[in-house]
Amino acid sequence: MTPEHRHSGDPILFTPGPLTTSHTVKEAMLRDVGSRDAAFIATVARIRERLLMLAGVSQAGGYEAVLMQGSGTFGIESVITSAVPRDGKLLVLANGAYGERIVRIANVAGIECTVVRSPEDEPITPSLADAALAADTSITDVAVVHCETTTGLLNPIEQIGKVVRSQGRLYIVDAMSSFGGIPIDVGAIGIDFLVSSANKCIEGVPGFSFVIAKREALLACEGTARSLSLDLHAQWRGLETDGQFRFTPPTHAILAFDQALSELDAEGGVPGRGARYAAKHRALLDGMRAMRFRAYLTPERQSYIITSFHYPAHPNFSFPAFYDQLARMGFVIYLGKLSEAECFRIGTIGRIFESDIQQLLAAIRGVLDEMGVPDGS
Amino acid sequence: MTPEHRHSGDPILFTPGPLTTSHTVKEAMLRDVGSRDAAFIATVARIRERLLMLAGVSQAGGYEAVLMQGSGTFGIESVITSAVPRDGKLLVLANGAYGERIVRIANVAGIECTVVRSPEDEPITPSLADAALAADTSITDVAVVHCETTTGLLNPIEQIGKVVRSQGRLYIVDAMSSFGGIPIDVGAIGIDFLVSSANKCIEGVPGFSFVIAKREALLACEGTARSLSLDLHAQWRGLETDGQFRFTPPTHAILAFDQALSELDAEGGVPGRGARYAAKHRALLDGMRAMRFRAYLTPERQSYIITSFHYPAHPNFSFPAFYDQLARMGFVIYLGKLSEAECFRIGTIGRIFESDIQQLLAAIRGVLDEMGVPDGS
Repeated sequence: MTPEHRHSGDPILFTPGPLTTSHTVKEAMLRDVGSRDAAFIATVARIRERLLMLAGVSQAGGYEAVLMQGSGTFGIESVITSAVPRDGKLLVLANGAYGERIVRIANVAGIECTVVRSPEDEPITPSLADAALAADTSITDVAVVHCETTTGLLNPIEQIGKVVRSQGRLYIVDAMSSFGGIPIDVGAIGIDFLVSSANKCIEGVPGFSFVIAKREALLACEGTARSLSLDLHAQWRGLETDGQFRFTPPTHAILAFDQALSELDAEGGVPGRGARYAAKHRALLDGMRAMRFRAYLTPERQSYIITSFHYPAHPNFSFPAFYDQLARMGFVIYLGKLSEAECFRIGTIGRIFESDIQQLLAAIRGVLDEMGVPDGS
Repeated sequence: MTPEHRHSGDPILFTPGPLTTSHTVKEAMLRDVGSRDAAFIATVARIRERLLMLAGVSQAGGYEAVLMQGSGTFGIESVITSAVPRDGKLLVLANGAYGERIVRIANVAGIECTVVRSPEDEPITPSLADAALAADTSITDVAVVHCETTTGLLNPIEQIGKVVRSQGRLYIVDAMSSFGGIPIDVGAIGIDFLVSSANKCIEGVPGFSFVIAKREALLACEGTARSLSLDLHAQWRGLETDGQFRFTPPTHAILAFDQALSELDAEGGVPGRGARYAAKHRALLDGMRAMRFRAYLTPERQSYIITSFHYPAHPNFSFPAFYDQLARMGFVIYLGKLSEAECFRIGTIGRIFESDIQQLLAAIRGVLDEMGVPDGS
């Protein structure tokens, strides 16, 4: 696959999503299918099976895949408000905006919740989780974000999982921006609920999220949900009973996702895709360093999903002008979301290639020159 | 516009949605746009303004339009769980499955709720609403379904609205399958919250719902929501603050909707579209009667949106076989949802035309012949 597969005149999206997708993924939406029709039901069943395979698990092995309408946050809320028992308590391990969002979900839903925080540039350590669980035996569920899109930081979900398992709690992983791009062995890690979204590393279009769940944990959710629409167990039960969604599914986004899964296979699955993303990330980091931009994270904490860079210190630098000029040139980057440092972000997921990164780097160089900013330092 | 505008080989959908849409609506999805980019923000603003115009109201007149990710049910749940105060009580006027769904939403969310029911083949009368409100002054909000898609029945939302207004309660109308196809003057009726969905009479693709709200009622929702994702006030506040969704929007479905709104204008707006739907409905009813099918509702209670027909009484008739054979021939009809009578449904909304109805009627005649069922009686 090459950039020539893109047909649209739209800018290239260097964001955490919605992303640039292939033309063939979008073309899969040029159909109207009935949500209760046999062919569509078969498509949904195939998607659910393929998602389990990507997670390294299977129905026979005791796992289920559930699709949920809405954005990724809807999927997270579905899991939190369906899985944490009415008398349960959630521990959130947070080091960024997406961890904090889980806390907000729990708070709005009236779910008892405690938070352990690390600084935004430091991974959650397993010992932090261990201490929090040992100190509070009323905690029933633990949630952590795999790739904190706030910064691009990767949390060590394997090691945290060992702690959560040994302490006998349920383990919820927000793998929104990593699943499909970074290998995750859900069974080996002992994840009870993993959440991701159609428009991230699988390179579909936005419209729904999905959950990989241990069946035993999913069955225990029955009757717990605080919402009809976001009831994960009822959604699964509906899909299992007659293959249909309880409420209208985003049929077009689902057809696109089916195509996106085929294109992921064609690229060599998660390892193949991960290799492309890693190469793009290296090219980005090399090029930005050559312009003396400073990455926010140290390299060993940094994922190849999205990277935060400090604003150049030069007084001529203006982020809005920098952003707008790049967008006019056809490159959409992303604003920062840090509480403590002025950064912007560049995503390296989606149907973009190293040559796109090189073009972006040249454009950044050009915009700095126009602004009279000597370099990125 | 003619059926020739369809390019896809997919069956024609005679359902309540997802519907057959125009090729140009689907083509609008062949783009990837950033959800935080200026052009997309402008599109969302334009859509919100056009929705208010369709409802006969405006921002200057004190109304707001809010888009909400997910299916129509997500939009309904967003309104119910954001609008009914923590110490409030909801009255649902129900005569079908969609009214009952509102009751379930309230029950799952722990919202106090009382129900007044009419039989599925009878409209809710204003006096029924009046008596219920007079009997219970603790009721704060009243919800009713405009076109009960269960049957195709139209409830008299104007007359019910007079009662609700005179009793000083908030008025919530589920206009899922009617808005855009049947004129609704939100201001004159005194609706506080109207909910509909992208993939109904506006003929977009599924992926989000929308709410037309009286601003005063919307402002009063602040802090009431039981869910982060479905917080109607916060969603509106986000759209007003920077024009952006709080959480990833279904960008492709939104681009399609913008195109669908243009095609609605080109057809003469709601009156023009309503005239096409009414003509299709008449052709359907005439043709089905000629085959001696019996409509479930009396004509004066029947909308031109969707029509329920009794199963033929002949022992050779099998609905699954009837449905499958029609689907194989390229015509997708819809199963019934009545608690008391065996019916199937045929929708007359979406980008289909009288000639499609004539083809469907001929196909039904053929399938009856194959089954050895002499007529629809």
